[in-house]
Amino acid sequence: MSKLLMTPGPTNIPTEVQNILGQDMIHHRFDDFHKIMENLNEKLKKIFFTQNDVYTMTCSGTGVMETAVVNLFSKGEKVAIVNVGNFGKRFVQICKVYGLNVIELEYNWGETYNINDIKKVISENNDLKGIFVTHSETSTGVLNNIKAIGELTKNSDILLIVDVISGMIVNEFRFDEWNVDCAVAGSQKGFLLPPGIAFVSISDKAKKALYKSDLPKFYFDLKVTIKYYNEKKETPWTPAIPIIRAAEVACDLLLKEGIENIQIKHTKLRKYVEDEVQKLGFKLFVKNPEARGNTLVTVYREDNLDLTKLRDYIDNEYNITIAGGQGKYNGKILRFGCLGLLTIQDFNNLFKKIKKYIEENN
Amino acid sequence: MSKLLMTPGPTNIPTEVQNILGQDMIHHRFDDFHKIMENLNEKLKKIFFTQNDVYTMTCSGTGVMETAVVNLFSKGEKVAIVNVGNFGKRFVQICKVYGLNVIELEYNWGETYNINDIKKVISENNDLKGIFVTHSETSTGVLNNIKAIGELTKNSDILLIVDVISGMIVNEFRFDEWNVDCAVAGSQKGFLLPPGIAFVSISDKAKKALYKSDLPKFYFDLKVTIKYYNEKKETPWTPAIPIIRAAEVACDLLLKEGIENIQIKHTKLRKYVEDEVQKLGFKLFVKNPEARGNTLVTVYREDNLDLTKLRDYIDNEYNITIAGGQGKYNGKILRFGCLGLLTIQDFNNLFKKIKKYIEENN
Repeated sequence: MSKLLMTPGPTNIPTEVQNILGQDMIHHRFDDFHKIMENLNEKLKKIFFTQNDVYTMTCSGTGVMETAVVNLFSKGEKVAIVNVGNFGKRFVQICKVYGLNVIELEYNWGETYNINDIKKVISENNDLKGIFVTHSETSTGVLNNIKAIGELTKNSDILLIVDVISGMIVNEFRFDEWNVDCAVAGSQKGFLLPPGIAFVSISDKAKKALYKSDLPKFYFDLKVTIKYYNEKKETPWTPAIPIIRAAEVACDLLLKEGIENIQIKHTKLRKYVEDEVQKLGFKLFVKNPEARGNTLVTVYREDNLDLTKLRDYIDNEYNITIAGGQGKYNGKILRFGCLGLLTIQDFNNLFKKIKKYIEENN
Repeated sequence: MSKLLMTPGPTNIPTEVQNILGQDMIHHRFDDFHKIMENLNEKLKKIFFTQNDVYTMTCSGTGVMETAVVNLFSKGEKVAIVNVGNFGKRFVQICKVYGLNVIELEYNWGETYNINDIKKVISENNDLKGIFVTHSETSTGVLNNIKAIGELTKNSDILLIVDVISGMIVNEFRFDEWNVDCAVAGSQKGFLLPPGIAFVSISDKAKKALYKSDLPKFYFDLKVTIKYYNEKKETPWTPAIPIIRAAEVACDLLLKEGIENIQIKHTKLRKYVEDEVQKLGFKLFVKNPEARGNTLVTVYREDNLDLTKLRDYIDNEYNITIAGGQGKYNGKILRFGCLGLLTIQDFNNLFKKIKKYIEENN
């Protein structure tokens, strides 16, 4: 049975992309696959707004987060991590597993970071090697200002690593212009693709660190991935061929519509959702309008309406899936994903159903 | 354009499985996905011939090889690795990256291991923690006897880790009966699936090592994978949903045909291929008949026929893909994959074309 996914990923995907997934298998060590890899890279470069190559790996977003950590640093090196939610915290966990010296800049869920904290960390730690930050924090809906951090790191040796997994496509992101050194993305968010592959791009500045890093890695060794791409337009390990093939088609759809056009459309969609949820008695979880992204709208209530029951009702009754809260916000917030193919009409339909439910159950 | 893949993976896949890949997306944190994960585990247990759970991860076979290494051992521990080709060597590389103390038992390509070497290593190293061995070595076609090693490790603390990536399904493999402690498999070989997911199962004996291991890992942390499966029937990181869904259907097809029946069919197929290639003037690369597996038939020639040109001709002219040699055997051998849906009729057709080519070009 088909469901309308109104979560911050995975999303429903277009028919053109679904059709590609089921096509006859090809082999990843032959020219037809090499051409797909080369075309995909060129398209991803346009989406990342970068001149650097974008490498495709077979894993989830967490896999490329780990790839960034284990390839760009060495044991004991000092890094600062902006933690505004579950996925900022994930960078903290990964860096600690690999023995990095972590300065954690932790903020309350629903808040963005404070630029003065970043300035202070940089000025007080002249051995700082990197700053990790989440673009769109999927657990809260906060969109962090990446450009402002890039201004601070661009003339230094500090690497700026950005998790754009849920932020990419529907929110502005400029790898080169914003002086980003490493960006990691996942297929199942703004890309109109299923989960299963992830993307990583690094700057020339980051490449220098890459060849110095002493952390152990094998599957996620980016040097090997780069070597295989450069020499053969291949991946070192057997890749998720159907999803990579679908990615080329999905990128075509995105580029044809235009990344800026998509962002304008999703800004409108997100603002519509923000207005309508407030009419239904929800409060916006992200208080600062400047920190609200287009990936999702997160809400809570001040009355006693059971949000988990509401979510289950909508799912069971109407086959529409919305997301609850993660971690400590489980049961306390709802997250409306605004990614991919979703339209104002989809939300209009959803909100009518929610309105009816609230009238009958509150 | 469709190609007939006669390589040792990836393989062509059945229409029933292709159709599932393109189905409407579902979300991996909801009950419909939980049911798929639970059903898939039960089916994989039958295919692995084990009472232990079989966990599904989003990565290639190399990813689960790394999973075995980083989860079951600690830094500096001594392990023996049976290296009869490219994939035995890969275990050596991974173990060395993570600082294990590696005893490498290296054999010439085309040969299987010598059981006396294993006995000697065990008797001379009472601190030995594990033995790694490849079931079917994809680079050569050798099928190693796993049962014989399990007899040596079963009453000890030594863990037996087996790469069954290309060996599974078409060759006999008995996790429990053969006293295996960890087996890792990939989707794109005997499973009638595209690449993108991989499987891992561990014994109770291995579970004890799991909770002691001090090697760094995050994405491949099997403790977390087990916890998510046990508590929620979920994966910790967003999985390759379409391929997991397809896996349940593919396992149904395999179990309906019967694993033993498939093995009988593929033994016949492999023997047919062995007979016919010799009529065409090829020599079998694996000299010992006891060491030949059903996954692939590897051949070489003593005349000057250019095998790469032959392979390219068959690919370009007939859209049939066969595999060349890996590493030092590039251009020196051909590998005919006998996996999946391939039949005697397919090979009969191929050999007619090869015969014609040889007559015209030799």
